[in-house]
Amino acid sequence: MAPKYAPSLRSRLAPILLILQTGFFIIAALCFEYKQFIRLDREFQDVNVMLILGFGFLFTFPVRYGFSGSGFNLLVAVIATQWALILNGINSWYNTKIRIDLKSIINAELCTMSALISIGAVLGKTNQVQLILIALLEVTGFILNQWLLLTLLKVRPLNSIMLLFVFGSLFGLMLTWILHRKTQEKRFEKEKFDNKSGLFSMLGTLFLWMFWPSFNSILVDENHKLRAVCNTYLALAVSAVTAAALAVLSSPRGKLNPIQMQSSILSGGVTVSVSMSVVEHPWEAMALGFTAAVISAVGFRYLKNLMLIAYECHDTCAVLSTYGLPGLLGWLVQLILQIKNSDDHTVMLRFVVFHMCALFITISVSLLTGILTAFLLKWKFWRTPQNNKCFDDQAFWEFPNLVVRK
Amino acid sequence: MAPKYAPSLRSRLAPILLILQTGFFIIAALCFEYKQFIRLDREFQDVNVMLILGFGFLFTFPVRYGFSGSGFNLLVAVIATQWALILNGINSWYNTKIRIDLKSIINAELCTMSALISIGAVLGKTNQVQLILIALLEVTGFILNQWLLLTLLKVRPLNSIMLLFVFGSLFGLMLTWILHRKTQEKRFEKEKFDNKSGLFSMLGTLFLWMFWPSFNSILVDENHKLRAVCNTYLALAVSAVTAAALAVLSSPRGKLNPIQMQSSILSGGVTVSVSMSVVEHPWEAMALGFTAAVISAVGFRYLKNLMLIAYECHDTCAVLSTYGLPGLLGWLVQLILQIKNSDDHTVMLRFVVFHMCALFITISVSLLTGILTAFLLKWKFWRTPQNNKCFDDQAFWEFPNLVVRK
Amino acid sequence: MAPKYAPSLRSRLAPILLILQTGFFIIAALCFEYKQFIRLDREFQDVNVMLILGFGFLFTFPVRYGFSGSGFNLLVAVIATQWALILNGINSWYNTKIRIDLKSIINAELCTMSALISIGAVLGKTNQVQLILIALLEVTGFILNQWLLLTLLKVRPLNSIMLLFVFGSLFGLMLTWILHRKTQEKRFEKEKFDNKSGLFSMLGTLFLWMFWPSFNSILVDENHKLRAVCNTYLALAVSAVTAAALAVLSSPRGKLNPIQMQSSILSGGVTVSVSMSVVEHPWEAMALGFTAAVISAVGFRYLKNLMLIAYECHDTCAVLSTYGLPGLLGWLVQLILQIKNSDDHTVMLRFVVFHMCALFITISVSLLTGILTAFLLKWKFWRTPQNNKCFDDQAFWEFPNLVVRK
Repeated sequence: MAPKYAPSLRSRLAPILLILQTGFFIIAALCFEYKQFIRLDREFQDVNVMLILGFGFLFTFPVRYGFSGSGFNLLVAVIATQWALILNGINSWYNTKIRIDLKSIINAELCTMSALISIGAVLGKTNQVQLILIALLEVTGFILNQWLLLTLLKVRPLNSIMLLFVFGSLFGLMLTWILHRKTQEKRFEKEKFDNKSGLFSMLGTLFLWMFWPSFNSILVDENHKLRAVCNTYLALAVSAVTAAALAVLSSPRGKLNPIQMQSSILSGGVTVSVSMSVVEHPWEAMALGFTAAVISAVGFRYLKNLMLIAYECHDTCAVLSTYGLPGLLGWLVQLILQIKNSDDHTVMLRFVVFHMCALFITISVSLLTGILTAFLLKWKFWRTPQNNKCFDDQAFWEFPNLVVRK
Repeated sequence: MAPKYAPSLRSRLAPILLILQTGFFIIAALCFEYKQFIRLDREFQDVNVMLILGFGFLFTFPVRYGFSGSGFNLLVAVIATQWALILNGINSWYNTKIRIDLKSIINAELCTMSALISIGAVLGKTNQVQLILIALLEVTGFILNQWLLLTLLKVRPLNSIMLLFVFGSLFGLMLTWILHRKTQEKRFEKEKFDNKSGLFSMLGTLFLWMFWPSFNSILVDENHKLRAVCNTYLALAVSAVTAAALAVLSSPRGKLNPIQMQSSILSGGVTVSVSMSVVEHPWEAMALGFTAAVISAVGFRYLKNLMLIAYECHDTCAVLSTYGLPGLLGWLVQLILQIKNSDDHTVMLRFVVFHMCALFITISVSLLTGILTAFLLKWKFWRTPQNNKCFDDQAFWEFPNLVVRK
Repeated sequence: MAPKYAPSLRSRLAPILLILQTGFFIIAALCFEYKQFIRLDREFQDVNVMLILGFGFLFTFPVRYGFSGSGFNLLVAVIATQWALILNGINSWYNTKIRIDLKSIINAELCTMSALISIGAVLGKTNQVQLILIALLEVTGFILNQWLLLTLLKVRPLNSIMLLFVFGSLFGLMLTWILHRKTQEKRFEKEKFDNKSGLFSMLGTLFLWMFWPSFNSILVDENHKLRAVCNTYLALAVSAVTAAALAVLSSPRGKLNPIQMQSSILSGGVTVSVSMSVVEHPWEAMALGFTAAVISAVGFRYLKNLMLIAYECHDTCAVLSTYGLPGLLGWLVQLILQIKNSDDHTVMLRFVVFHMCALFITISVSLLTGILTAFLLKWKFWRTPQNNKCFDDQAFWEFPNLVVRK
């Protein structure tokens, strides 16, 4: 029989947090210095809203897991951002100083986003200590990948950073695949939502949806910024319509599925993120939005269950169909459009090889670091919550004055 | 006896969505092209927040209708915006191309807003297919009205677009009046709110309230932008105080009514929207806020019930008192202030006639297209939900893992 | 036995609101005029979001007090802002006119923020009339304090306005201490939260957290604006990590406390607000974030209960540990860093004396006006809600269509 109480994390979480934060502080004291600032405060704030509010509330859909969803997300986000700030800084080391400005914080937050996507796959089945480890290792892997792409293939950061969706979702899938529990039922007892927790999750999703145009325009240079905003909006709009059509089509009684909708309406944004630099015309963005929604909806309906049954891979937030497949589509579109636009045969061929290598490296690094992280997390030392404590705030939070509903 | 299950929309909704989206796509592929961009990304985002989050969550107050409120709103908003983009483009046809930039998307979103206001009147009593039809026809009517005003009376777009509040609310009233069901009780069984769904609705209302100053300043030229922001804030502040005072006064036991508050605190913003170009001094804005709140509160308390009982017109979101009456007040104020400011008698008289004609045309087009739309919607083909399926998510959404509350 | 119904506020609230608003209107009509505008619309909107949404939803955590929390907050905020606009205007009287622009509205909103902090201490135990009185008197006291600091000590407004956290929390503590009811139990019957109302409160807190960097940069001159954004973000990030670590450490079973987290994650922002002008390096901001979170967490765990038991001072939102102590820490840090940076002994000594006098004046004015206000509020005329009507929307709101949960 499983023990009645969830294991205490006091001796694990507190030391880890304090050691990490002290380490970050020492590095900051020794190496951080501000450089000349570029006016990016609005962009910074928009990314912040997406990370903290968007993902935070997206994660509140399990009915008893709202505090954990939004609270752990905040915790993980700020740790991962500090860590990414340091790693990115080492990359662009300048006279033994890490130079910080709003742009470097925004870059760090984009790395954090890849970690939050991974966390979506294991949401509810891990404790905070494990989430923090995931974030640290994922960010490390992602920055390693960016460094590899830059060093080996001269991929511009603008392009390599947007592979975060592919990287994050594959990393997350590896995690949840290896962490699968033999004793586990098809579904966790408490993996449910009610209409209010679903609305909180809708709130988070809508924040992501609304701020995606701004997100996509952040790294783009001034001349193409507004085109990126328009393209993203059009892709998102078409995604939303297509997602609804497919949800109704794939339901025997013609009903919409709220979780599927929340997953598919974002897919157009993801695809445009990855392929941004080559999408020029409105109709291209709309076609992307349509294709992304189709792939995402099909993935959600059929792949998610297939993965669960055939491969024992339980993907809580459907990260594969929400971010992974649309991300891959974006990569493909970038390839195709680049081929279409190029005249020179040799240049084109070289680009194709480079582009495929970039994806190959990304997928390899993602899978490898994901597997590594997963095995580390399997260690009993981290006190994984028991099955019946999964998706349950009670295991991690104390509520002295909670209303008891009879 | 009514059938037990809500009718399936599979064979209606999916084809309509796919046909519409394919049509939009073809038009986009043939005619859309980007033009030189103006930096309006922040303005675009603010309008987006109002449409998607503001109206979306405003519509979540019925306790079992949260997903429909916010989800259908998103769906309708993106369809209406694409449609308005096309229609507006045809209006300013340029070398067989529709030129798109952030400004044209913002304009399209304002047209969408008039459709969302109409939808407020029939919320909960129609299915998604009907909502989409309403949006398409309403946007068509509204753009036709703008075109008429421009062609016949040379009304500047800045002034004609802000009549959206009058247009939208009258259109909505016609809909709900003609769609009234004979068998219907005074109130629908499920038209209720609980304290949590009320808070979600409060969230949406506050988003509208907070972003209204920014909304009002969007179309104003650079020199008067910030004055519009200040004016709107003052009007909204006075509205909020007045709304509370009147709610307490009109309640026998001195209590506030949350729905009435949500409706009245916005009225000042609506009035300033319509009369923006002539309001110059802070006290004028404050006086507008006060008058608008009085009209809106009186309308909510007495007119809403009167309409329901005497005219069998069930106005779910009280669009008449929230947007219609304050909008008309704004029109009147514009007239009065313009008269006050003009010296020349002939010019003044001409303005009065023009201004009254503009309102007359707007009201006529709105009522006519509203009636037309309503009769189209009455067609059984659209499978209107039965009375006991109104205000119920279960009729439109499937919830495989919903918590059952015993 | 206490009366069964809450006393009606009809004859109190409505006249007060109408008289106040009429008064404001007359002053506006006589004295307000717009001056040349500075482009501060984004800053204005961010402060607005913090006041209306941040504080509004922070106050929704009591399970039956959501409408009051968010609704009264709106009401109080708009009244206090208008009042502060007038008082600030008299301060900078110009040719018998009060000149208004976005900057003066932002300043007024900062004064309002100090009132909202005070209200946090008495939340749930007072009615709207009392809240309005508190706001009016608190704003008066705060502006008086700013005027004293400017006149006597030449403290720059940038520095004096940020003492709002110290002023507001001490004012609030005085209120709740003097208003303590003899008959009151340790806890009010309805002072509880459930997991949904807690999430709404989390939403408000996260909005405060996300917009704090923007808030801190509002009054800073253009050259140091972006540094203030970065500093605040770093301090907030470290606060969040430290708050979680300390919450786990101080809980016997290693769990997090949601209310404590919500209180402590903001502390870094508060401290940086007060000490902004002297914090230069990233590590300083991070050290501030750490120290603030420690002080805030210790204050929450031990001081809050001590105050309740030993001094009979019931601090609903823990304003002392959330804003008061971190604010004092910010003051101290400003002192220390200024001493460290100055070379001249005499200048330094003079600064120390001035700085201590500034705090002494602020604390005195805050305590005095707080005590005065509290005694005014004790007057039976205001109809304080009975103990069993505290933290209960039913006493102030009417719900004609509320769902009754059996």
